[in-house]
Amino acid sequence: MIPQKTFVSPKIIFGRGYLKKLATVLLEEKIGNNIVYFIDGFFTNSGFEKVLTFTGNELFFYVDTKEEPKTEDIDKFVSNIKESMTSQSDVIIGIGGGSVMDVAKAVSILLTNAGLAEDYQGWDLVKNDPIYKIGIPTLSGTGAEVSRTAVLTGPKKKQGINSLKSMFDYIILDPELLQTVPKEQRFYTGMDCYIHSVEAINGNFINNFSHAYADKALQLCEEVFLGNKGDDDLMIASMFGGYSIVYSEVGVCHALSYGISLAYGIHHGEANCIVFDQLDEYYPQHVQLFRKMLNKYGIQLRKGLTKNITPKLLDKMVDATLLMEKPLSNALGANWQDVFTRKKIKELFLKM
Amino acid sequence: MIPQKTFVSPKIIFGRGYLKKLATVLLEEKIGNNIVYFIDGFFTNSGFEKVLTFTGNELFFYVDTKEEPKTEDIDKFVSNIKESMTSQSDVIIGIGGGSVMDVAKAVSILLTNAGLAEDYQGWDLVKNDPIYKIGIPTLSGTGAEVSRTAVLTGPKKKQGINSLKSMFDYIILDPELLQTVPKEQRFYTGMDCYIHSVEAINGNFINNFSHAYADKALQLCEEVFLGNKGDDDLMIASMFGGYSIVYSEVGVCHALSYGISLAYGIHHGEANCIVFDQLDEYYPQHVQLFRKMLNKYGIQLRKGLTKNITPKLLDKMVDATLLMEKPLSNALGANWQDVFTRKKIKELFLKM
Repeated sequence: MIPQKTFVSPKIIFGRGYLKKLATVLLEEKIGNNIVYFIDGFFTNSGFEKVLTFTGNELFFYVDTKEEPKTEDIDKFVSNIKESMTSQSDVIIGIGGGSVMDVAKAVSILLTNAGLAEDYQGWDLVKNDPIYKIGIPTLSGTGAEVSRTAVLTGPKKKQGINSLKSMFDYIILDPELLQTVPKEQRFYTGMDCYIHSVEAINGNFINNFSHAYADKALQLCEEVFLGNKGDDDLMIASMFGGYSIVYSEVGVCHALSYGISLAYGIHHGEANCIVFDQLDEYYPQHVQLFRKMLNKYGIQLRKGLTKNITPKLLDKMVDATLLMEKPLSNALGANWQDVFTRKKIKELFLKM
Repeated sequence: MIPQKTFVSPKIIFGRGYLKKLATVLLEEKIGNNIVYFIDGFFTNSGFEKVLTFTGNELFFYVDTKEEPKTEDIDKFVSNIKESMTSQSDVIIGIGGGSVMDVAKAVSILLTNAGLAEDYQGWDLVKNDPIYKIGIPTLSGTGAEVSRTAVLTGPKKKQGINSLKSMFDYIILDPELLQTVPKEQRFYTGMDCYIHSVEAINGNFINNFSHAYADKALQLCEEVFLGNKGDDDLMIASMFGGYSIVYSEVGVCHALSYGISLAYGIHHGEANCIVFDQLDEYYPQHVQLFRKMLNKYGIQLRKGLTKNITPKLLDKMVDATLLMEKPLSNALGANWQDVFTRKKIKELFLKM
């Protein structure tokens, strides 16, 4: 195994209004006629079907993103596609936020690999080449558009399909698609990029490659959320933040935030913010800047979440945190257990 | 045609000593046994053959890089390979500076496409898939390791084989390989990155994608050549600089520097420096910083090149400059001819 490598989608186009280039991309890439769309449920009545019907052999799925995608959702989409299309689908197109990206990635794999989605959660378990896929993000910050994983919640675990075959073949970055994102969601998802870049750049695993990407991602986030830069730069920040964690790892915030999501069903971006606000001890300067951004955006974080928590639930959250060995080694060193004790973790959770 | 797109090599690994991972890469990528190396002539007696013989079916070519590669060189390499190897070669590996990168790219194409190298100079003329190729730069700044072109001098013109099929399939970035680069060459090649990033970021064609890459490339160059950053960051700067011009264009400096190279046979990096030193009018702040770098590195630029120039040669250099329409539009706008006149160009050349 090569320990550290970057694998990126080789084809990216960037520009306002570039969604309109999709038809040209399909022609140039010599893809067939059977097109399957996964579109964020947010756009259900936005008239996308009219704009995106090119061949007449399109299938449109609107993905409910209230909850993050489950393996059983993928299995249902796959059997639905197999029933609905007379021949093999030629291209999968995901238009949406991180969840929709993950659905498109996973379906493209399961259409050509037998079994259930849960069979492929893990590292490099995918055998056959997937269906050609195109990612068109409408929300920026997760980095899912450039990552090599499709995160799914299965019956046994929440884990990604980590595989080169999860990567999009083509990415269209169109900043105009960000203009309808609700303010709070834009903030929380943008902060996902900010926080994983902070964790990468302050971690032990960082190298010069990741550092360059993380540093620029942070600068762009600060210019977007504290200065006057807009969606174009937020979209680039998301891409750079995604690249920055290829060679690095997340840190203390992600280790704790999974516990918050697990216990309270709070989405990843918001959970990260709730946790990050308590991490002055680990990321002092960036937490200060984060609070400035919160103020500037008028975002009120939920408080007192754990006020009436039962000892049992608190223990479960601590257990989930302690499983995050790689992020915690990255943040605190090989002997992280000496300083990041159950007691310490509980104290942090009880502040939230 | 999609006007603006980024196509990048999807697989990059970065780290000190990573040349040693080549054997693992060949195994993991399931490449066959017939390996053709193009290695910078600089390394002729460096013992690379011993380290890089894995299968016994290797061919080693040491590339003389005193002059930039010609199409006839490529044709000779190709017939030599076809005579020497009993079966088709499986992988082409380029280890060297920009010229060696270009040779490896071009040979990989000509091994599977009939005719002569000069037949493919231009845009998207390559039909068949090339031989799998790996780029391992030993000099940083040109961006050739990530670009989609293989620049060649042919009987009719100097032009690249501009094609997706010119791109490396795999790139190994090992900063240790930079440690033997002579000081002046390191400076001039590094400045190639600095100058094309300056031209990109100050041009009219820039977008947010290129801007982020160019801005970070400039910052890294300044930290390397004015601060205390080293080869690791120079290597990343080169990659970022290469990406920055995908969506942009070069400018006034490159438009003039081809004339200098043409007339005096001066290598691209050095020619750029000689020109850039006279461009306060166009890139004032960056020229100031460039002079600080010159001083810090104790580099003495050649002076008085055009002191005894004949009117005929000067006219030829002006003609070559005026052909550079795209860089000049990028730098000076659509009406560049109104301000960048023959008289103006002559004045600039006569300062060099």
